[in-house]
Amino acid sequence: MADRVYNFSPGPATLPVEVLEKAGKDVVNFQQTGIGLIEISHRSKEFMAVADEAEANLRDLMQIPDNYKVLFLQGGASSQFFMIPMNLLGKDKKATYLNTGTWAKKAIKEAKLFGDIDVAYSSEEASFNRVPADNEYTVAGNSEYLYYVSNNTIYGTQFPNVPATEKMLISDMSSDILSRSVDVSKYGMIFAGAQKNLGPAGVTLVIIREDLLENTPAQTPTMLSYKTHADKGSMFNTPPCFAIYVVGEVLKWLKKQGGVEAIEKINAEKAGLLYGAIDSTDYYRGHAEKESRSLMNISFNLPSPELEAKFIAEAAAVELNGLKGHRSIGGCRASIYNAFPREGVVKLVDFMKEFESNNPAS
Amino acid sequence: MADRVYNFSPGPATLPVEVLEKAGKDVVNFQQTGIGLIEISHRSKEFMAVADEAEANLRDLMQIPDNYKVLFLQGGASSQFFMIPMNLLGKDKKATYLNTGTWAKKAIKEAKLFGDIDVAYSSEEASFNRVPADNEYTVAGNSEYLYYVSNNTIYGTQFPNVPATEKMLISDMSSDILSRSVDVSKYGMIFAGAQKNLGPAGVTLVIIREDLLENTPAQTPTMLSYKTHADKGSMFNTPPCFAIYVVGEVLKWLKKQGGVEAIEKINAEKAGLLYGAIDSTDYYRGHAEKESRSLMNISFNLPSPELEAKFIAEAAAVELNGLKGHRSIGGCRASIYNAFPREGVVKLVDFMKEFESNNPAS
Repeated sequence: MADRVYNFSPGPATLPVEVLEKAGKDVVNFQQTGIGLIEISHRSKEFMAVADEAEANLRDLMQIPDNYKVLFLQGGASSQFFMIPMNLLGKDKKATYLNTGTWAKKAIKEAKLFGDIDVAYSSEEASFNRVPADNEYTVAGNSEYLYYVSNNTIYGTQFPNVPATEKMLISDMSSDILSRSVDVSKYGMIFAGAQKNLGPAGVTLVIIREDLLENTPAQTPTMLSYKTHADKGSMFNTPPCFAIYVVGEVLKWLKKQGGVEAIEKINAEKAGLLYGAIDSTDYYRGHAEKESRSLMNISFNLPSPELEAKFIAEAAAVELNGLKGHRSIGGCRASIYNAFPREGVVKLVDFMKEFESNNPAS
Repeated sequence: MADRVYNFSPGPATLPVEVLEKAGKDVVNFQQTGIGLIEISHRSKEFMAVADEAEANLRDLMQIPDNYKVLFLQGGASSQFFMIPMNLLGKDKKATYLNTGTWAKKAIKEAKLFGDIDVAYSSEEASFNRVPADNEYTVAGNSEYLYYVSNNTIYGTQFPNVPATEKMLISDMSSDILSRSVDVSKYGMIFAGAQKNLGPAGVTLVIIREDLLENTPAQTPTMLSYKTHADKGSMFNTPPCFAIYVVGEVLKWLKKQGGVEAIEKINAEKAGLLYGAIDSTDYYRGHAEKESRSLMNISFNLPSPELEAKFIAEAAAVELNGLKGHRSIGGCRASIYNAFPREGVVKLVDFMKEFESNNPAS
């Protein structure tokens, strides 16, 4: 295809071009059925096979144990913020949360509607520029779970390791799922909005341990109970078919790349190139503390807001798009999820050097 | 395009082929941005324009008054079953529901979790083969609203007119929205899953009167409050961008057809052809009583289940697909929403005559 630009958008984000091209054809005529992908019944054998294959490939890629259910839900990761405590907590029950960014904070707000929430750590006063080491917080003994956001998209921080705790973990992995190996068995639940590493906006992946499905209070609306969706293979009602299809294609693409271990190396290399460029000069400053750096979102500043605006505009002019930082911290941000090509990172690094030499700090 | 079949699926359902072809291209390269439609930021000016245009065209097509908000939500129409009473009822408040089919019944079940629900009419004992006339039920005086399902997809029934009541109406129009003119000002809220007359699965349209946004109880999770989404133009979190885009394209297509009044005539004609075929013989029997017949879903039976199975199989062999009735009533069903072409109805009618003469009732 002609004229593809490098899109550093934090989500919706760059997807593999071969997935886009296949989706573009299937939307019009799905598998030569004479029916478009977005017209075909979700209960047709053709679509059921798509959903089954997506789940099977995800299970394979993440090595999901048999006692976990995989759900494809709607409502975004934001809906999980309340569904988790609604299903898994009670008025007198406690959970521990780590406040490492905007999305953690939103999850805490919703959880407080349902239970006793202990915020054991917060980096809010430092503009969320770090995540805690294990010795920087304590998980309350009577907590049902420890909740954390694995990667903080806005601030460019990421937990380098799984928090060391005996408690059940629940993690929002919206912005780093499938970017590195994860031992699913340590988690009660993992969830992720699709629009970063998985596919298009409109579907949310939930991986949940089966025994937790029994905890939902009676009186919970049918659609808000995880068990409803688990019992019906995510087809209690019409699922977001197109988004599930694209996720399935992205998973197939990921397998072709060699799976999670292979992409993890590529991700480390891509991020290494960018952090190398940042660390080689005082001109660029990373937002995150080094120990907390994300391999997915690299948030950084230039010597002044004026230079940042100029940088973003001139980058866009050479087809390096979407580098504006989130409005809450400003500056620049390069989001380089699994499908973002290495060549785009190299091009950005070259552009950064050139921009610095053309625009010295005053 | 080659080999397009006639797809009578009840939803996801046939969409205009020109919409599919445009979507297929935009998925790969959206408006020549060099970024695919499903990769581009929902906050980009390009996508914001798509969402704004979709809303403007919907307002125009349905003549939605200014004091109504248009929301594009996730979770399917099924999520509205609980969101409506959660936002608009209270423990001591009453609402009246008409039980005219599976989807009404599900809505009643969820509403009972939140308020005092009066089921003023039910056709369940007659296999939901009819909807009530105005004089067949009474709306309780202290009801907050009267809830009804405008068109019952499974049973092929449809309210011929808006229920005559002074009470605020709330209607599930999932399977007949934009198929005929509606006076929105009579409603507190109208909602519809997209996958029949509007677009792909994955987005739910909500049209809600502004003053109702203030009724939501405190302690309601943020994502479940209509006001959250109304205040942020359906972009509180990442919306289902692709589905909204396709809805926008379907709305543009509908305007080109002449709008709702024009399509209403075409729909009446298409349904007339099919009901004419049914009424011209005793071989085919419509499920719905004549006064309750749907113009969108025509459910019918043949002399025996064996003949029905043969009919469905032989129809599929000549590219008349998706004619199997819902498992709850069996038989056959032809769903002929706005985008279903007249030629396909004519072909089905011809096939019905031929099948009858080749397969006499024993």
